[in-house]
Amino acid sequence: MTAKLIVLYKKPADTKAFDDHYFNIHVPLAEKMPGLIKSSYSRITGSPMGQPGFYLMAELTFDSQEALQQALASPEGRAAGKDVMGFAGDLVHMMFADVVDTPAGISG
Amino acid sequence: MTAKLIVLYKKPADTKAFDDHYFNIHVPLAEKMPGLIKSSYSRITGSPMGQPGFYLMAELTFDSQEALQQALASPEGRAAGKDVMGFAGDLVHMMFADVVDTPAGISG
Repeated sequence: MTAKLIVLYKKPADTKAFDDHYFNIHVPLAEKMPGLIKSSYSRITGSPMGQPGFYLMAELTFDSQEALQQALASPEGRAAGKDVMGFAGDLVHMMFADVVDTPAGISG
Repeated sequence: MTAKLIVLYKKPADTKAFDDHYFNIHVPLAEKMPGLIKSSYSRITGSPMGQPGFYLMAELTFDSQEALQQALASPEGRAAGKDVMGFAGDLVHMMFADVVDTPAGISG
């Protein structure tokens, strides 16, 4: 069962400055983490229920929770963590997750 | 650019009853939506920052925001929406998102 680090960001005051740092500095740092097998980034565009929401979501996939924890504890993981706390410490919400093997036909 | 419906659920009082309904009733309903090209379900296991978090996340991927909106407006989408509001209306947080073509090498 693969494991994910899910990182949600609330909307920053300066979206351009956030995007510049995020995609040019932070993503390359985060993607150096050992054991990373897949990454995906989603820009939140709205909510059908009008709820206060998030701005951006990153998902970093590893072979297992152990591999995820090892990645976060590595020098590369600590550098990425330090970076994110510096530019988005008040916006970031991180979660660990297990990817479910879905019971239905469509999955991926 | 593909589009995602991201559905976050807060932790239910009765996780077993939630899981039973979710995976046996709701997921099969939701996966009948026309235009769905991929689905993924993640169980949230914790947070490195000890923040109050979520219990489960579903991601339903479509070819475009237009295809996503058409799916939600379809009879199958309305049935899935009615079901979710019935068993988890107070827990659910839905978001629309555009999947970013990542600048770095690792992606998927």
